[in-house]
Amino acid sequence: MVGPIDELEKCLSRLPGLGRRSAARAALALVREKERLLKPLAEALEIAAGRVRCCSRCGSFTEVDRDPCSLCSDPSRDGTLLCVVEDPADILSIESSGAFRGRYHALGGKLSPARRMGPEKLRFAELVDRVVREGVMEVLLAVSTDMDGDATAGYAAEVLRGTGAKMTRLAFGLPADSGIAYSDPLTLRRAINGRMGF
Amino acid sequence: MVGPIDELEKCLSRLPGLGRRSAARAALALVREKERLLKPLAEALEIAAGRVRCCSRCGSFTEVDRDPCSLCSDPSRDGTLLCVVEDPADILSIESSGAFRGRYHALGGKLSPARRMGPEKLRFAELVDRVVREGVMEVLLAVSTDMDGDATAGYAAEVLRGTGAKMTRLAFGLPADSGIAYSDPLTLRRAINGRMGF
Repeated sequence: MVGPIDELEKCLSRLPGLGRRSAARAALALVREKERLLKPLAEALEIAAGRVRCCSRCGSFTEVDRDPCSLCSDPSRDGTLLCVVEDPADILSIESSGAFRGRYHALGGKLSPARRMGPEKLRFAELVDRVVREGVMEVLLAVSTDMDGDATAGYAAEVLRGTGAKMTRLAFGLPADSGIAYSDPLTLRRAINGRMGF
Repeated sequence: MVGPIDELEKCLSRLPGLGRRSAARAALALVREKERLLKPLAEALEIAAGRVRCCSRCGSFTEVDRDPCSLCSDPSRDGTLLCVVEDPADILSIESSGAFRGRYHALGGKLSPARRMGPEKLRFAELVDRVVREGVMEVLLAVSTDMDGDATAGYAAEVLRGTGAKMTRLAFGLPADSGIAYSDPLTLRRAINGRMGF
C-alpha cells in the first residue's frame, strides 16, 4: 500500500514467529503509534546493534564491556556441569525452568548436511577445550530431538570421549499440560518406554 | 539476560501478534543476524518514522508527498461507494478480498465507553463531510461484529441519516474453511437466520 510500510512489513516478516499477516499488523501499529512503539524500537535496535556481542566463553550474548557473560562469570553456578545447547535462545528456555544450575555452551546451531552445516562451523573445538580446561565432569547435551539434533549430540559425544566427562541428555516423554490425544506416536512410544513408578 | 536484548524484547512484545516468547525469539534473532535482520529493520523504521503520514481524506496511511493517498486518488475506484472501517489495517484486509472497488474512510477506532473513546475522537465529522461533498450513494459500514462495533455502526448511521446515502453492512455467517464445530452459537444463529437458497 505505502512503500515505507511495505518495507517495514518485509523486515518484520523475516523475524521468527511473525507470519505475513502479523508482520503487516505490526507494521501498521508501528506507524500508527510512532511515539509509543516505533521510536522506542528504533532506539533499542540501535543500542543492541552497538552493544550486543558474543560471550567468548559460552557463545551466548553479552554486552561489549562484559566478557565473559554474567552466566559464565557467576561464581554460584556449578562449573563441573556444562549444558550444551544449539542456540543462545535455548539457554533462556532452560534458565526459565529453574532446574539447571551449571554453566552453558552454545554451539551456534546444529549439524545439518542439508543446510551445509558441518562441525567446523559450530563451536565444538571450544567445547572440548572448555571441558578439559574447566574440569567439567558432566556434559548435558540439550539439543533438539530431531535427526540433526541426534547427529549433533552424537558428534559432541564423540569429540568429548577422551575427556572422561560423563555425557547425559534430556529425558524424552510427554510435555506438561498436554493430553495423550495431542501427542504424536513417537513421543508416546518414548513416553511408554521410559515410564516411571507412580 | 543481556540489557539491550531485554529492552529489544520489551519493545517487540508491545507489537500486536507478538507474545513474550516470540518477542524474545525475535530479539535474539535480531542480534544474531545483525546484517540480515537488525540493520534493515532499523533503517525501515527510520524511513517509516520520517515518511509515513495520514491521508487527509480517508485517514489511512500514505507518504509525505502523496496526499490524498493512492487509493483516494485512484480514478478507477467507484467514488459513489464508501466503505467505513475502524483502522487502516482493515482496508488491507478488504482490499485483499478483491470484492470491493469503492473508496474507504477510516474512523481511527471504534466507540467504546470502557476505553473512553467518544465520537469526538473519531473521524465522524470528516465522514459526513465526505459523503455530502463526494456524492456518496452507499456507505458500507465494515466495523467489528462486537458491541462496540455495533455502537459505532449505529452512530455512523445516525449522523449520516440526513445525507440520503444508503447504509449497508457486511453479511453475517460462517467464515470460509471452517467447520460447524468450530463456530460459536451466535455465529451459527446468524448463519441460520441468514440462510440462502442452494
